[in-house]
Amino acid sequence: MGATNGMDGITVNGARLSARLADLAEIGAIPGGGVSRLALTDGDRAGRDKVVGWMRDLGLAVSTDAIGNVVGVRAGTGDGPPVMAGSHIDTVATGGRYDGNLGVLAGLEVIATLNDAGLKTRRPLAVAFFTNEEGARFQPDMLGSLVYVGGLSLDSALNTRAIDGARLGDELMRIGYAGDAPVGAPQIHAYLELHVEQGPVLEEEGIAIGAVEGVQGISWTEFVIEGQSNHAGTTPMRLRRDAGLVAGQIAGFARQLAEEAGGDQGATVGALTLSPNLVNVVAGRAVMTVDLRNTDEAVLQQVEGRLFAFARDAAAAEGVRLSRRTLARFEPVAFDRHLVGRVAGIARDLGLSVRTLPSGAGHDAQMLARVCPAAMIFVPSVKGISHNVQEFTAPEDITAGANVLLRLMLELADPREDSGI
Amino acid sequence: MGATNGMDGITVNGARLSARLADLAEIGAIPGGGVSRLALTDGDRAGRDKVVGWMRDLGLAVSTDAIGNVVGVRAGTGDGPPVMAGSHIDTVATGGRYDGNLGVLAGLEVIATLNDAGLKTRRPLAVAFFTNEEGARFQPDMLGSLVYVGGLSLDSALNTRAIDGARLGDELMRIGYAGDAPVGAPQIHAYLELHVEQGPVLEEEGIAIGAVEGVQGISWTEFVIEGQSNHAGTTPMRLRRDAGLVAGQIAGFARQLAEEAGGDQGATVGALTLSPNLVNVVAGRAVMTVDLRNTDEAVLQQVEGRLFAFARDAAAAEGVRLSRRTLARFEPVAFDRHLVGRVAGIARDLGLSVRTLPSGAGHDAQMLARVCPAAMIFVPSVKGISHNVQEFTAPEDITAGANVLLRLMLELADPREDSGI
Repeated sequence: MGATNGMDGITVNGARLSARLADLAEIGAIPGGGVSRLALTDGDRAGRDKVVGWMRDLGLAVSTDAIGNVVGVRAGTGDGPPVMAGSHIDTVATGGRYDGNLGVLAGLEVIATLNDAGLKTRRPLAVAFFTNEEGARFQPDMLGSLVYVGGLSLDSALNTRAIDGARLGDELMRIGYAGDAPVGAPQIHAYLELHVEQGPVLEEEGIAIGAVEGVQGISWTEFVIEGQSNHAGTTPMRLRRDAGLVAGQIAGFARQLAEEAGGDQGATVGALTLSPNLVNVVAGRAVMTVDLRNTDEAVLQQVEGRLFAFARDAAAAEGVRLSRRTLARFEPVAFDRHLVGRVAGIARDLGLSVRTLPSGAGHDAQMLARVCPAAMIFVPSVKGISHNVQEFTAPEDITAGANVLLRLMLELADPREDSGI
Repeated sequence: MGATNGMDGITVNGARLSARLADLAEIGAIPGGGVSRLALTDGDRAGRDKVVGWMRDLGLAVSTDAIGNVVGVRAGTGDGPPVMAGSHIDTVATGGRYDGNLGVLAGLEVIATLNDAGLKTRRPLAVAFFTNEEGARFQPDMLGSLVYVGGLSLDSALNTRAIDGARLGDELMRIGYAGDAPVGAPQIHAYLELHVEQGPVLEEEGIAIGAVEGVQGISWTEFVIEGQSNHAGTTPMRLRRDAGLVAGQIAGFARQLAEEAGGDQGATVGALTLSPNLVNVVAGRAVMTVDLRNTDEAVLQQVEGRLFAFARDAAAAEGVRLSRRTLARFEPVAFDRHLVGRVAGIARDLGLSVRTLPSGAGHDAQMLARVCPAAMIFVPSVKGISHNVQEFTAPEDITAGANVLLRLMLELADPREDSGI
């Protein structure tokens, strides 16, 4: 127990973690402090090589699987599946240096800290990065972790075409990351992912740590509204079939829906295009999207139903044709209750302010949640900015998040019984 | 009186008028039966040459003024200002063959009919076509008639730049239509313009002739709404400043305004552009237009006021910045009451169905209304389509409209007293 008490004082080296983040950000650096390393490009290869080098330097046994996911394992004193930290190191075309990278490099910092302290754990520890999380070059996003947990066949994933036409499998071969480790049924004790919030909640409330309860379900709908393009001066109101009007009404109703549903219900009309889009011509056609999100699948379905009914009624009232198609639909994912509680508990033990919150964005953790207890730790994003060169998280917040990760990995990997400390 | 009775039976030669329309439409013909003769292009020159040739063949004294307006005059048995029929022969880039051309060629058909019948009138008759009515190549539209009536200085008009960069005065010289007839203070007894409706009202109601009461006032406003672009998944509703939402609300309110104002109030949101216009990003910026029209200036001002107040309030509620600028603003124009009544009376005498209606589009007649009694005769546009190669008006409707024009020109030019018929 004395040894355990000694471990309780252990903390990561925040400066070393920040230095690794800066070092990795030099690969694919773009003006303004951002990073561009689209999945399976030369930039991604260079980033992967750098991280794999660090893994080897830290004594991890590195394996690459058939979809290019890389896992570095630190042996435990006992057997069994590892406690894994992970995320991704691919970025969007004009991304920041924290999104994904933080979760991977914080995992390495945990390993480095334990190495420095000479601490062993009963269960093995692992640090992973997954292929093509962003979905910026290949669809779908979170492709590597999805294949990893058996949610998408390897063949189908390898045959995916990039936005630039390249085949995923060919690109994997080309950059030397088509490995032979198996995919589809990983054995993992627990999975933890430290990530920047990418939203404004923690900063706005002055809170250091977010204990992520789950990932919101996502419903993306595209409406195509076809009316009649007409002269704005010569067409009486009663004879109009105005696609733009119906689009505007749907946009207004989407906000009303979110307010009425309350909770974490989100509703966004982000894209709306009118044709011919001229000041004095009634719009003959409108194409728009509605992005709905909720952590509660039942509420999300209710909100979808109300939206679709409103759109139908509004279209009928104006005499326009309405069609809709689903662009994306994911059910909410709930993270492991015990782990979420432990993230909050450890944060409090460390004197850090903490709140639970859902993730509005998708993460590899939601795929891992299919095969093992999983949870995420959020740290604040300045102004909520992400997928942008201005993405920024303060070093002290990064250190705080990495310390929560360290403590929870140690707790899960059970140092007390077998580590000899 | 016997002679007058003889004149009462006179009618235009509809086949000849339709043949001239078809003949002129061959110049600048485009696929689908349309015409492209932008103002002061080589196509416009060829069209002008053709019409001037017809004017000369009909014995008219042709003059061209300093802004390129062309007037052909048939002498009367007495002196004094002429009764003028007119319109324009320039078209939009993908225009129809009726818009403008009909008013000019129907004027020539009136002359031809009187020539054939050997009828003279006390007052002179004139047929005119005005430069750059469409505004498709030079701004503003109705430029030629505006200069003609003294509403815009010749210098300023000549220095206007085309969308292709050319100077209007240079183009006039180039095509040989920089004339020496004066502009700014024309002497005209009355002005009549036969035109296709360019809207659906007459066709929808099965009516042959529209007696145009006036031209609607036009108010074009551009709103620029600046909020904050944010991730749709990670930004709670309460923290959003959604430019797209406010744009949608304004679009919905514009329709509500038109319904509440009633009458001929028009409200159109024809153009609306979101940035960055992505499904999962709250729009940080929206640019939209609102086109308001009414024949009653007081109501139009009231509607403008309510729109601006709503936009301010909606922007404040969402925490977005709103700016607006006026893209165009014209007060309504009322045509001469007596002439409007005579259009209707003559139509009824000819056994034609008739209704009064406002013009939602601008026409040269509204400029001429500044200097003389003016009125317009509308004939039905199939499906209300105009500024389009599918623009179509049935030959019998064209003939009916030209007969109303013939009768009203004769009435105004007073054939009974001096023509000897």
